[in-house]
Amino acid sequence: MRALRSLRAVRRFSEREIPAAVLEALLEAGRWTGSAKNTQPWHVVVVTEQETLAGLSKLGQYAGHIAGAKCALVLVMDGAHNAFDCGRLAERLMVAAWAHGVGSCIGSLFPDENVTTAKRRLVIPEEKWVRHVISLGYPADDMAHRISSTPGTRRVLPSVGRKPLREFVGRDRYGAS
Amino acid sequence: MRALRSLRAVRRFSEREIPAAVLEALLEAGRWTGSAKNTQPWHVVVVTEQETLAGLSKLGQYAGHIAGAKCALVLVMDGAHNAFDCGRLAERLMVAAWAHGVGSCIGSLFPDENVTTAKRRLVIPEEKWVRHVISLGYPADDMAHRISSTPGTRRVLPSVGRKPLREFVGRDRYGAS
Repeated sequence: MRALRSLRAVRRFSEREIPAAVLEALLEAGRWTGSAKNTQPWHVVVVTEQETLAGLSKLGQYAGHIAGAKCALVLVMDGAHNAFDCGRLAERLMVAAWAHGVGSCIGSLFPDENVTTAKRRLVIPEEKWVRHVISLGYPADDMAHRISSTPGTRRVLPSVGRKPLREFVGRDRYGAS
Repeated sequence: MRALRSLRAVRRFSEREIPAAVLEALLEAGRWTGSAKNTQPWHVVVVTEQETLAGLSKLGQYAGHIAGAKCALVLVMDGAHNAFDCGRLAERLMVAAWAHGVGSCIGSLFPDENVTTAKRRLVIPEEKWVRHVISLGYPADDMAHRISSTPGTRRVLPSVGRKPLREFVGRDRYGAS
């Protein structure tokens, strides 16, 4: 619960390497993610080559954080109808990373021509659905999880923080308190 | 990490009530889920009325587990394009529940006419995207997380367990070990 409650996107990473055992532990946690009818409609490309990380960081409007990551997880899904299961996988990988002190941020590949470029570079079959990349790394500093520490990102967000519980939840009926 | 590694779908629930404090803790964990540009495109209807749970359980082919749950969380999204964020929210709620010993299972509302019925019952605006309902409850027994303990469900699954790590992960390239 501590890991869940404190999880925030981290966009600035330190030079510290992620130990192989930590990376394997979080991939193992990801491997056990549940999916519709247990179809496991996914494959994760673990990118550690610096040049590839830099290349991926240019394939989305807000994907710059990938360039500074020690590692990126490219989530490859069988089809667009697996978006829900993709979200389950992403959340679990991020929680598992944070439980080990490793920060993360989701980057989106966009538009379609950038997706095509990423697929070619990583030899991902054309028919797969690829949109999400998770940056991984230890936080650069104690402020790295604070959105105020990346002003460029702050500017494009409609809001920070979260809506209050009474707006998030309805009791037995939509919007009822 | 223990909660992550041991999380499995639970389809049979005990009569034990979920304490209000536990339910609030997991809703609070859910409230802090990250979403694209922090849009928080969601609202969660917390269903505890027995009659409503029974009604929802009939609105999906494999949603029977909702009838025996102490509570169900209906995930209401702004639109179908929020499926990825819906998956993040679902996974986080399930992990948070399990961290408190509360089991869960995802049920799908299907087909569209059943979605419409659910929306009317819960007074959810027509334009919202609703597909996923999470059952919550303490496991009925020590076997409740084992798929073999619900033979009807076991039969419709193409496989149990998970594919091996070498199929789940590619190193710097799709499918590479």
